[in-house]
Amino acid sequence: MKLCRFGKDGAERAGLVDAQGVLRSLEGHVADITPDKLAPEHLARLAGLDPASLPVVAGPVRYGVPVAGIGKYICIGLNYRDHAQEAGLAIPPEPIIFLKAISALCGPDDGILPPVGSTRLDWEVELAVIIGSRASNVAEDAAPEHVAGYCVANDVSERAFQMQSSQWDKGKGCDTFGPLGPWLVTRDEVPDPQNLGLWLDVNGRRMQAGNTCNMIFPVAEIVSYVSRYMTLLPGDVIATGTPPGVGMGMRPPVYLQAGDVVELGIDGLGRQRQIVAG
Amino acid sequence: MKLCRFGKDGAERAGLVDAQGVLRSLEGHVADITPDKLAPEHLARLAGLDPASLPVVAGPVRYGVPVAGIGKYICIGLNYRDHAQEAGLAIPPEPIIFLKAISALCGPDDGILPPVGSTRLDWEVELAVIIGSRASNVAEDAAPEHVAGYCVANDVSERAFQMQSSQWDKGKGCDTFGPLGPWLVTRDEVPDPQNLGLWLDVNGRRMQAGNTCNMIFPVAEIVSYVSRYMTLLPGDVIATGTPPGVGMGMRPPVYLQAGDVVELGIDGLGRQRQIVAG
Repeated sequence: MKLCRFGKDGAERAGLVDAQGVLRSLEGHVADITPDKLAPEHLARLAGLDPASLPVVAGPVRYGVPVAGIGKYICIGLNYRDHAQEAGLAIPPEPIIFLKAISALCGPDDGILPPVGSTRLDWEVELAVIIGSRASNVAEDAAPEHVAGYCVANDVSERAFQMQSSQWDKGKGCDTFGPLGPWLVTRDEVPDPQNLGLWLDVNGRRMQAGNTCNMIFPVAEIVSYVSRYMTLLPGDVIATGTPPGVGMGMRPPVYLQAGDVVELGIDGLGRQRQIVAG
Repeated sequence: MKLCRFGKDGAERAGLVDAQGVLRSLEGHVADITPDKLAPEHLARLAGLDPASLPVVAGPVRYGVPVAGIGKYICIGLNYRDHAQEAGLAIPPEPIIFLKAISALCGPDDGILPPVGSTRLDWEVELAVIIGSRASNVAEDAAPEHVAGYCVANDVSERAFQMQSSQWDKGKGCDTFGPLGPWLVTRDEVPDPQNLGLWLDVNGRRMQAGNTCNMIFPVAEIVSYVSRYMTLLPGDVIATGTPPGVGMGMRPPVYLQAGDVVELGIDGLGRQRQIVAG
């Protein structure tokens, strides 16, 4: 099941994208896709609907963040071997946790607004995990049960801000640095999260092309690991790291400029398109 | 005005502590202290009430987080000259920003739960700023207008987790690591946030005794600075750093143990008391 929120920023409604890729309204069945609606029983109820019975949403729409009211956005740093190498950093012995400010969240095609003073604006396609049920100190084999589904994420980063102090959060949390979506694809439709191709183009040029099979720490291990340090709650997001090909890793480095078009996607999870504002 | 939320965890109601220190219910005037209620016009409306007309809340109560629905919790690292020295780190040329997971938030006296594997549990009394209105790229002289008020915060930290990778967030965001309150004291009652004594005791022994006059970056500069990197929204919290005297800075280091009693306070902002769980 592909769940989404569509409509103007701040006035999104719940939708479902059917097997033919047609957007249908969930009006009358669920008011909004909120964290409490990610519980297994709620997802099962929605999965029981006949998509053909839901009204088609006509015309082009804006997609919003697929879940309203996300509480925290956790990122895992350097989780692909090749990306750690391109960044010139050692393979981490344990997952590196940092946080993205919630105010950075935006729809998948909303566009990237370079913050004042930005000089090194970069991209990172990532597989995002959306938590469906409370998880604290869960074992690795129990971790998948706590996952509601998956999304495409662009972990937009300003490298000068990120590297200005020892702490990365300043360069990760700027407004519009958290495009998420277009859909939350429920876990049952992603049988193997460790075998997904993911890619990112800038102005039509392929910059990133990876596969989640190259993660150092796979999804189940990440969910288990993070849950040892902080309780994961429904709606929480974990972005699981980026494959090689970020701008900072190029020789010489390449950074985003006004008017650049960033497109990215993950097998089965849809695609995003952002224009960098001037 | 001292605003608070009191009652059982998850079922708090809005309250006001009057000039005599008596807790009174705001029932009938405001359902809860939520971010939207921190706007100047709402605060002015509450300030117009006669506290004597409000019902007294009898008996001992639990205080909750003073604002419900906090969106982000920003921390400023190493913001007191002496604390940077005790940590053996250079005086930062700019504020160091990191984030505390929202799930760490708890009431001021709820107690500290050591996470599994904790070996170096530490304390940090801090002046917390609560944002009242949206702030993006605001100048330093305009910054105070965006502050709704101030709180006592304990930036509880697990030093082994904090220092295990380059990123501190893992050791700052564990459940119960964000005691906040007891009250939000509105800005008009804190004429000079740069002249507040703050202290912390462990088992009755004074560990931290500082004054906000020793901040490297004062509140107005911090609010302005952070607003250049991420939009500050009503209800957002900024913890402004801790004075000397944390456990990690002792020779030899001293860390919290089960049963320890942590008490802390700031002039005019009340006090907190946490027992470390076993």
